[in-house]
Amino acid sequence: MALGLRLYYDFLSQPSRALYIFLSTNKIPFERCPVALRKLEQKSPEYRKNVNRFGKVPCIVDRDFRLAESVAIYQYVAREYAVAPHWYATDDSVRRARIDEYLSWQHLNIRADVSLYFFHVWLNPLTGKEVDAGKTERLRQRLDAGLNFFERELLAGGRQPFLAGDTISVADLSAACELEQAKIAGYDPCDGRPALAAWMAAVRQQTNPFYDEAHRFLYRLVPDTISTPAVPEE
Amino acid sequence: MALGLRLYYDFLSQPSRALYIFLSTNKIPFERCPVALRKLEQKSPEYRKNVNRFGKVPCIVDRDFRLAESVAIYQYVAREYAVAPHWYATDDSVRRARIDEYLSWQHLNIRADVSLYFFHVWLNPLTGKEVDAGKTERLRQRLDAGLNFFERELLAGGRQPFLAGDTISVADLSAACELEQAKIAGYDPCDGRPALAAWMAAVRQQTNPFYDEAHRFLYRLVPDTISTPAVPEE
Repeated sequence: MALGLRLYYDFLSQPSRALYIFLSTNKIPFERCPVALRKLEQKSPEYRKNVNRFGKVPCIVDRDFRLAESVAIYQYVAREYAVAPHWYATDDSVRRARIDEYLSWQHLNIRADVSLYFFHVWLNPLTGKEVDAGKTERLRQRLDAGLNFFERELLAGGRQPFLAGDTISVADLSAACELEQAKIAGYDPCDGRPALAAWMAAVRQQTNPFYDEAHRFLYRLVPDTISTPAVPEE
Repeated sequence: MALGLRLYYDFLSQPSRALYIFLSTNKIPFERCPVALRKLEQKSPEYRKNVNRFGKVPCIVDRDFRLAESVAIYQYVAREYAVAPHWYATDDSVRRARIDEYLSWQHLNIRADVSLYFFHVWLNPLTGKEVDAGKTERLRQRLDAGLNFFERELLAGGRQPFLAGDTISVADLSAACELEQAKIAGYDPCDGRPALAAWMAAVRQQTNPFYDEAHRFLYRLVPDTISTPAVPEE
């Protein structure tokens, strides 16, 4: 298969899953180029030289053009390919600004909250590093506070179905894939947050079967204390 | 003065300075609404309720529309106001993608590198917190590595005048205002990096007198070991 657009991704990376689902849901043909983070393939000199100088996933190569950072890729794809307007509010400047606000805000907030918890609680033991109980508790409280804010302010306590209004956008997809990651570390973002749970279910429902396809491997890593969908093997 | 666009900012905030310079350079009229971070005005319930729910600066209010996050504001302003095309490559999809890539990448890289160093070395002593020598050294090494990558890869060692090619963009402005912050903590980003120094000088030159106006207060905080421009009082 030789297509114009190639996606480099690992399903253990939150923005990789979001981009995979975004391209698939919008029926944009792309060549799948898996990169194994567990083997540090993204840090190899060849990968940095030929694919992504930042040494990360996801990224795309569109013909000759190499682009990293999922947020920049959403915008580029929405300009260059046929994407339904609601995904990036290409027809509504104010709603679009709300989507961009979330995609920028997330980096040092929800994304950092989840990633720090996930790294400390799940990844550290795998690499032989110590898990500090006090630090775990501080990171858990930070994640709690971030998700409470998310539900109360960004979803208006459930009165707003999606992050930028009545229809799903790349902000929702990005956020949902981020929150799924916490489940691997035994943290259920939906527990005690009914509005957030309803929103996550809606994101999944509107993007299936691709949502489950991208999360199949993740679901298998989630401890039994958190229920995940049963997804048939490929 | 009652204008449609209001900017809430503090000149001690990197993205506040960048937005102030961006609006001024593009001759977009705006009402100045200073917010004193040192008094934690951005965390007050009134500010969160009426201006910015995230409790941060910068943000804008455009007539009734409240928008936070400098990256989202650049995009919104470039759509709604008269901005020279080179600032956000509104006429060039590939160059625009390169700008968006930087603006997304910076959060967990250059922005985090500078902010962590600045907070630990400069802000902690002011608030009575301990400055740990080992941590200072680790953060300095991280900042060194980030800036070396910035000069070598993003400026192509000086062969590329700006981050997204031959003309200045919001990526350069955002990055330069970020790097200025390190000087307050006694770290000179230009030391030993001639290509980075030439680029910073070019950003300042192309946006003056507004660059110096936004940095006047910062320049006064920089220790004498790092030279800063003499800027007349207002």
